[in-house]
Amino acid sequence: MHNKAVSAGLQNRPPAMMENIVRPVLVVDEARCRSNIRTMQRKAAAWGARLRPHFKTHQSLETGRWFREEGVETIAVSSVSMARFFAGDGWNDIMIAFPVNFREMEEINHLAGMLKVGLTVSCPASADTLPGRLKSPADVYLKIDVGSLRTGFDPGKPEEIRLAMDRLATDDRLQVRGFIAHAGHTYRAGNREEILEAFYSGRQALLGLRDRLSGDYPGLEISWGDTPSCWLSEDLASLDELRPGNFVYFDTMQLDLGVCTQDDLAVTVAAPVVALHPERGEVVVYAGAVHLSREQGLDKRGRTHFGRVVFYDPQGRILWPGTDIFVDRISQEHGIVRMPPDIIREIRPGDLLGIVPVHSCLAADLLREIHVVGTAAG
Amino acid sequence: MHNKAVSAGLQNRPPAMMENIVRPVLVVDEARCRSNIRTMQRKAAAWGARLRPHFKTHQSLETGRWFREEGVETIAVSSVSMARFFAGDGWNDIMIAFPVNFREMEEINHLAGMLKVGLTVSCPASADTLPGRLKSPADVYLKIDVGSLRTGFDPGKPEEIRLAMDRLATDDRLQVRGFIAHAGHTYRAGNREEILEAFYSGRQALLGLRDRLSGDYPGLEISWGDTPSCWLSEDLASLDELRPGNFVYFDTMQLDLGVCTQDDLAVTVAAPVVALHPERGEVVVYAGAVHLSREQGLDKRGRTHFGRVVFYDPQGRILWPGTDIFVDRISQEHGIVRMPPDIIREIRPGDLLGIVPVHSCLAADLLREIHVVGTAAG
Repeated sequence: MHNKAVSAGLQNRPPAMMENIVRPVLVVDEARCRSNIRTMQRKAAAWGARLRPHFKTHQSLETGRWFREEGVETIAVSSVSMARFFAGDGWNDIMIAFPVNFREMEEINHLAGMLKVGLTVSCPASADTLPGRLKSPADVYLKIDVGSLRTGFDPGKPEEIRLAMDRLATDDRLQVRGFIAHAGHTYRAGNREEILEAFYSGRQALLGLRDRLSGDYPGLEISWGDTPSCWLSEDLASLDELRPGNFVYFDTMQLDLGVCTQDDLAVTVAAPVVALHPERGEVVVYAGAVHLSREQGLDKRGRTHFGRVVFYDPQGRILWPGTDIFVDRISQEHGIVRMPPDIIREIRPGDLLGIVPVHSCLAADLLREIHVVGTAAG
Repeated sequence: MHNKAVSAGLQNRPPAMMENIVRPVLVVDEARCRSNIRTMQRKAAAWGARLRPHFKTHQSLETGRWFREEGVETIAVSSVSMARFFAGDGWNDIMIAFPVNFREMEEINHLAGMLKVGLTVSCPASADTLPGRLKSPADVYLKIDVGSLRTGFDPGKPEEIRLAMDRLATDDRLQVRGFIAHAGHTYRAGNREEILEAFYSGRQALLGLRDRLSGDYPGLEISWGDTPSCWLSEDLASLDELRPGNFVYFDTMQLDLGVCTQDDLAVTVAAPVVALHPERGEVVVYAGAVHLSREQGLDKRGRTHFGRVVFYDPQGRILWPGTDIFVDRISQEHGIVRMPPDIIREIRPGDLLGIVPVHSCLAADLLREIHVVGTAAG
């Protein structure tokens, strides 16, 4: 037998908690999610910052309720549709952390009439276009580009930012609340040190901007996103709000970046085995691009993969194999897993493998449905 | 003005047919889809083959109905869920062209009790497992690996294949119908010649296999998939069935492979502009990984992209810009488009751009909803 973890996972097949899984689904460990939420909640409180978790990661009402039960009341989302979705479950302070889409003004007005909505403006043209379009009050944040080169104002051009704020302030319904930043480039960092360097320099830029504009605009807030810096940094001083999202689930990318440990990881994609090809050391699973996304990771040798393969214990909790196993290739519904032949010999068509997705936000978006394990009773 | 196409597209903003598009949606040109369907239908008929289009490409009841109106009665899908979806719209001869997932036997039995179902077995272990699991008759096909190295039996091992057929034939409910192959490696081909080479050698292997086994199993059918070879080959002799899927929509990948022309292309993703960054020659659109997928294409210089950008005429039909414009980067909802500054000057937040997806099957899976243009009246 190759290793005990595999043995434990496969001898009890199908695992009791997992019997009713028939197609790919996101398996979510509730205890780990709650632990991750509490860790981030305590850290935010210790630094005097509001936690406004980004719900684009999970897009799940159930996962959202765990946040509420842990005391979270403010959330961020990345589309008007997502705001409507969570508003329907009672969330009433929602920042749409995505540049305002003027084609959705009717829906935005509908939401702003019902709850506290935060809008995002990320370029001068949008700041010129927004005034006069709202029918109810809303908060508005300026997105500042701290280096991800996605979108946002250049913090090196404070006068351009001041002009945009002046333009927005012409509309009494718009309350200019402050600056938001998302250091997306921390995801491309090579290690923890690079992540922290991006965080400290980005924060410095935002603090400089606030100082410069605080005469005309007192009380501006700074809202900072991205899981790597919020989770890792030992110093979150001067931030008013934290908007990490991924930390509730984590994924292969965060593991490989050294942000989280295996014990923090809370999601896998359950993948039924549909073909065995021991002669070439491969197993085919029902889990492809429409379940995992085509987001690629790199193994230690620099070979691309589409997720790390694990086993399940009878309660659906993760068992890490003693060797690295990856989804080597995918097509629309197929995943091709490379595995040592002695492990393949233990597997039969219809068994379930677990796949730790490379990017859990995309897998969660694709799968939507979650299968909860690791409950208090579990 | 940069070019007339842009001018025509942007002067009538928002285009009359496109006014009600508020968020990313798949814009489908009905006239082009019907033309593509008729072309393939006529070609299949000319070679005496049944057309069994693969509906995984569109996953749309409406697009499916165009096939039916053009005379198609048999379809392929790639999951049990998709079979159920199309069965609900009256399709009653459905091949599930994906290795049988034993966790879904209850649903498979439900379908097999209602309509003509084709199952796929792609390895000896599955052939051993299937007998005795069905409650109603079903067709079964052996998947042969003609070089894509995804899954399937090795055509160089006819005795292994014969044993699998013998095993399946022990179940009276299973009718062994023949061989299916999908030359997925034609998508990795560099040009038309490589596509045709893969097709001819794959077909040769299947014909050899049929000859070898026809003594014990007379009347075995050969079912061939993949759009590149079905669309391009001038010789489709000896095939009983064609299962292309992508040809109804096409995409950037097929354009770049030289399979289709710009005039065959029937889908775009409508993407609202949400930020302008003329200083760096970029425009941000609401269309990211959750709309386009992370499938990458390559431009002529070998730079990766996530879709080719086009404009719309007032009826929502494609206007090709005079210069190559690509989605350069994406995150979950953001797409970053690189554009010449003189074009950016013509664009305002809230305008719609069109994106020809790299892989239309994945974009269609993500978006689901379609916005139809190019109807006979349009």
